[in-house]
Amino acid sequence: MRVVITGGGGMLGQKLARALAGSGGIGDRAIDTLALADVKKPPAVTAPFKVTCHKVDITDRSALDALFADGADVIFHLAAIVSGESETNFDLGMSVNLIGSINVFEAARRCGNCPIVVFTSSIAVYGGEIPAMIEDWTILNPQTSYGAEKAAAELLLTDYSRRGFLDGRGPRLPTISVRPGKANLAASSFMSSIFREPLQGQEAVCPVGPEYEHWYLSPRRCIENLIHAAELPGDAFGQNRCFALPGKTHAIGDMVDAMGRIAGEEPVKLIRWEPDAAIQKIVLGWRAYFNPAKALALGFVADESFEDNIRFFLEDDIEKPGASTA
Amino acid sequence: MRVVITGGGGMLGQKLARALAGSGGIGDRAIDTLALADVKKPPAVTAPFKVTCHKVDITDRSALDALFADGADVIFHLAAIVSGESETNFDLGMSVNLIGSINVFEAARRCGNCPIVVFTSSIAVYGGEIPAMIEDWTILNPQTSYGAEKAAAELLLTDYSRRGFLDGRGPRLPTISVRPGKANLAASSFMSSIFREPLQGQEAVCPVGPEYEHWYLSPRRCIENLIHAAELPGDAFGQNRCFALPGKTHAIGDMVDAMGRIAGEEPVKLIRWEPDAAIQKIVLGWRAYFNPAKALALGFVADESFEDNIRFFLEDDIEKPGASTA
Repeated sequence: MRVVITGGGGMLGQKLARALAGSGGIGDRAIDTLALADVKKPPAVTAPFKVTCHKVDITDRSALDALFADGADVIFHLAAIVSGESETNFDLGMSVNLIGSINVFEAARRCGNCPIVVFTSSIAVYGGEIPAMIEDWTILNPQTSYGAEKAAAELLLTDYSRRGFLDGRGPRLPTISVRPGKANLAASSFMSSIFREPLQGQEAVCPVGPEYEHWYLSPRRCIENLIHAAELPGDAFGQNRCFALPGKTHAIGDMVDAMGRIAGEEPVKLIRWEPDAAIQKIVLGWRAYFNPAKALALGFVADESFEDNIRFFLEDDIEKPGASTA
Repeated sequence: MRVVITGGGGMLGQKLARALAGSGGIGDRAIDTLALADVKKPPAVTAPFKVTCHKVDITDRSALDALFADGADVIFHLAAIVSGESETNFDLGMSVNLIGSINVFEAARRCGNCPIVVFTSSIAVYGGEIPAMIEDWTILNPQTSYGAEKAAAELLLTDYSRRGFLDGRGPRLPTISVRPGKANLAASSFMSSIFREPLQGQEAVCPVGPEYEHWYLSPRRCIENLIHAAELPGDAFGQNRCFALPGKTHAIGDMVDAMGRIAGEEPVKLIRWEPDAAIQKIVLGWRAYFNPAKALALGFVADESFEDNIRFFLEDDIEKPGASTA
């Protein structure tokens, strides 16, 4: 079986590649080749199968044709311009997140074998004037260009699946925390950095109050869910191939308390509480309450508590970075 | 003020052009020029302002650039590949309904004056596993490629509006009945033909039973609503610029009874009831129950009863075809 990961150089792409290397396959099917593609050539991972690394811009159809020249059985389409950059550079976000996704779906269609396509959508598709509790039938009402592009691509993933061009699965990712790596310009960056930096002895700034609630999933459970999405039979998803992944609603204060219980009070003291009106304006528009009934029925999983998120970060990214998430 | 209508040669495009010719303007702004564009050069209409007719394929960006070389203040983007053809020719539907719509939105953006764009979406964006009553916050869950393409374009219309590139308004049209003209291959064709043909002394076939319920609007009220959509201030629509138009739920049997009350029993006898499994498979997946609260609050209107739909057809399309709908 040949697996392709777009965005294969990113945080999730690399963790996914390592998880697949650990398991050797997806479900009961062994992997022969894993192709990692990203706009910069991604690092390879050590695996019991062949791993190839490709510099591919998904806005370039001929580059995609080359990537898919040997076909694909499972495609994880993770490549995207993140929300902050899609907001400041509209044309780039449109070209990668919407047109680039169409290019990937068309490349999958041309494979001719109806390959499985796992597409990472986002809770950024929700927002605006909708009831507080988000159900599986709540309108996608994005408040950012990133969310609009993800939502439009979702509609196409489902339609391409209905037509038999590909076998799509579109989990909407909660905010992922604790993310390893460096802080970035995303408005959500603090939702990882206020744990990641203090757990490594560094200060971090929290721009919202302890009462701020949001919807979270750990990287480890996210990767497990992406692989589970590829393992299920396509018709299990029903007509709409896209769905909110399970997560947990936490208030920032409770998350900080969880860090204290796992790692003691020293990291907690490294958080500086400095309200930031610009960040609050964005993140207060995000949603915190979800009923992911469809995903739960399909066996997708959330973390038990935020203590898990802290523990998984320490285990996967600090104590043995690069470890398999399997 | 310069007004552009894409799909200006179609049934709604021509009725809209005649209505604008009758009123001379939109709200309190007089029209100087009306440009009618379609994939075939549309017929002109007689008007108190300049009317130009253009052969424009909206998949061709340079043709759109030429159409918008003189700018635009209000754009009615009606051009589309209909649902049946989008289903049999996927690539054509995608290129016109999604990529073509992006081209029109980009052309509007390049006008530089944030023009009003009225985009005709459709109740084909709804369907599948959703509650029976469709609310303003019900997920768009299309069951056809046409619906998926319209829904994706909706998301972009709202995002382009949020960014100030254009001032979008996206009414979702109910099934329009009684449509003038000829029967076509759309699965919904009978919803007009079983009235239109008998009212002109011809037989027609009804492929569903009298109990079949659906959601309707007359062409006259549709045109009034499209013009109302252009007249309202943009911020009246809120963040999501797209919304279900008012309509009325009718059972086919009740609609036929309404025709009898208006035109006597002779037309009713010209309907042959011949169940068609292929058509039923499609139309039984369509939705009949809507609560268009947002549109009603904004002053959009439905017909009072199906007798209106019959009367408007006789008045506008039989007794004085080509008449203004204003």
